[in-house]
Amino acid sequence: MPQFLLDNNHIAAAAAGGGAGAADETMTAKSRVTVVGSGNWGSVAAKLIASNTLKLNSFHDEVSMWVFEETLPTGEKLSQVINRTNENVKYLPGVKLGKNVVANPDLENAVKDANLLVFVTPHQFMEGICKRLVGKIRADAEAISLIKGMEVKREGPCMISTLITEQLGINCCVLMGANIANEIAVEKFSEATVGYRKNKEMAEKWVQLFNTSYFMVSPVQDVEGVELCGTLKNVVAIAAGLVDGLEMGNNTKAAIMRIGLREMMALSKLLFPSVKDSTFFESCGVADLITTCLGGRNRKCAEAFARNGGKRSFDELEAEMLQGQKLQGVSTAKEVYEVLNHRGWLELFPLFSTVHEICIARLPPIAIVNVKFK
Amino acid sequence: MPQFLLDNNHIAAAAAGGGAGAADETMTAKSRVTVVGSGNWGSVAAKLIASNTLKLNSFHDEVSMWVFEETLPTGEKLSQVINRTNENVKYLPGVKLGKNVVANPDLENAVKDANLLVFVTPHQFMEGICKRLVGKIRADAEAISLIKGMEVKREGPCMISTLITEQLGINCCVLMGANIANEIAVEKFSEATVGYRKNKEMAEKWVQLFNTSYFMVSPVQDVEGVELCGTLKNVVAIAAGLVDGLEMGNNTKAAIMRIGLREMMALSKLLFPSVKDSTFFESCGVADLITTCLGGRNRKCAEAFARNGGKRSFDELEAEMLQGQKLQGVSTAKEVYEVLNHRGWLELFPLFSTVHEICIARLPPIAIVNVKFK
Repeated sequence: MPQFLLDNNHIAAAAAGGGAGAADETMTAKSRVTVVGSGNWGSVAAKLIASNTLKLNSFHDEVSMWVFEETLPTGEKLSQVINRTNENVKYLPGVKLGKNVVANPDLENAVKDANLLVFVTPHQFMEGICKRLVGKIRADAEAISLIKGMEVKREGPCMISTLITEQLGINCCVLMGANIANEIAVEKFSEATVGYRKNKEMAEKWVQLFNTSYFMVSPVQDVEGVELCGTLKNVVAIAAGLVDGLEMGNNTKAAIMRIGLREMMALSKLLFPSVKDSTFFESCGVADLITTCLGGRNRKCAEAFARNGGKRSFDELEAEMLQGQKLQGVSTAKEVYEVLNHRGWLELFPLFSTVHEICIARLPPIAIVNVKFK
Repeated sequence: MPQFLLDNNHIAAAAAGGGAGAADETMTAKSRVTVVGSGNWGSVAAKLIASNTLKLNSFHDEVSMWVFEETLPTGEKLSQVINRTNENVKYLPGVKLGKNVVANPDLENAVKDANLLVFVTPHQFMEGICKRLVGKIRADAEAISLIKGMEVKREGPCMISTLITEQLGINCCVLMGANIANEIAVEKFSEATVGYRKNKEMAEKWVQLFNTSYFMVSPVQDVEGVELCGTLKNVVAIAAGLVDGLEMGNNTKAAIMRIGLREMMALSKLLFPSVKDSTFFESCGVADLITTCLGGRNRKCAEAFARNGGKRSFDELEAEMLQGQKLQGVSTAKEVYEVLNHRGWLELFPLFSTVHEICIARLPPIAIVNVKFK
């Protein structure tokens, strides 16, 4: 088809097939990917991406992965072990990442040549990382954030994609979905959603980069909707866990999940009128909600909380059950409550506000099913 | 508020409070309810309704319940035991229905005075029941169907609400939702959806009749959408059960449920262009799907089917696991497949068609996650 001749990537691809020297000559036309982060999900993302850059001519084979350096109990550096064994022995043991994944402990060095930046760190590190990256990235760089659970400040949510765009002056998409990293690592079938703002071609490039036979990615033009799903679902997971702990059965649990999904939609649309209902039918919406309410630590701790009749605090259960990890749902519920209170919307969101009031022991766990839902 | 003075029910209610003789005088203005069916869900429906008719002046207290007569092992008739003990000892043991529920084994006698008919029988009995009722019901009667799982014929679904309207010449709403009867019977929190065609006031009357503090009912103007949810979800439950049997994890299960929900929406809209997306966010949609894919016999048998690598047929597993009950999902999958094939839509519905092909052993269980979904 003639229009493809105008496509740089296509020309590069054609050229790359032309002989030994061709790859070097066309290198500048190929996209170079850096994954910023190397935890559990970051390592899986690197694996997905690395399998695609090898196959697709429009991407440079090598995938750079920034590693927050740690010294392992053996005395070795984590980045060195990853590069030697091709495995993130600490955060994704037993899974080969692909030989074209190169761990790099130097953040600035890891990003300097990349025009595709994949951010996948704990959300509290992003502000610091962005500050360090100002002026250190390529002018034509594009970003995608895989970071779930941005903060919700009193005035409204502080979107990670917005933080990246504002701090670094680059466009930023998001990728969210029902994505338990360890299941995708062993290539169990899953889906994800890429949310984009305007540039559909760019969204399709991200889809190309992530999509595999077992990881099916769809683009939707709704950054805020996609990103908010990833955060707000954790509040619903607390509610679902309470229902489990109260032994109310699947009926009640399904009802609470549905009401939670409705409140997720309603709040997202109040905060960002551009948010679309249809986004909540995507993997980032209903599917991620289901996964999180079936398994997941928010659900698990909330179940234990209800079983103890609310007599042991979430802080205490968290410390006991999560080995130092923090429960995102409890803090998000608090943040959401503050937004609702600040805007005078508490009565519009009985599930969200009741979850917070149960978390702080102002209401007993059973209150979750005694609310007058709209 | 003055406009209430124009409301017949309100006048009746006011009159009913006016003295001993008033109730008789205004009896004709009060609605009389008959529940046609007395199985597990029918008995729970009678209990819900009976609690409301006692409270609301616009309904006659007594709720008639048609019982398909059976002789119990004790030699007593089921209807007599229900009327003596106030309990359906066979289909809902241990739960008091309300003293104002009157079991009646004579169908024609049970319906003759009712202007509100609640149909809740196995779907295969409805054609026969309708034939028996022609000319035997009040001309001003209104109906609601609680029957899930109507047949899907080659040309398209044979809606029970349509059957009732066509055979009896009366308007028919539907009530569907995440409704495990035994959980509602013990008053665990749940929701349901009333689907109506045009008459919103009538829909609100049905909501009044069913709604309780633990059973929250919402009306939506989409009979077909609501009714199709109740049938098509059973096909998705088969898919979810296969994923469970294959031990693919919550991620894959959530993805399959989401894709199933999308196919439910797409097929409903192709068959009935009036069907609304928003209906699938109601209890009849996403919540019923979740309940059915978490518990339920379709899920359970499909799990066993996959665990046996498809080597034992659904017929065999059904016979072993369900004490003579039939699996709705397997037959619905077959019926849906015939519709899709007949209309040339097979490729548009990879999940629905794969479920059927797995059920008939044309494909192995693992095919459920190897499909190229759109």
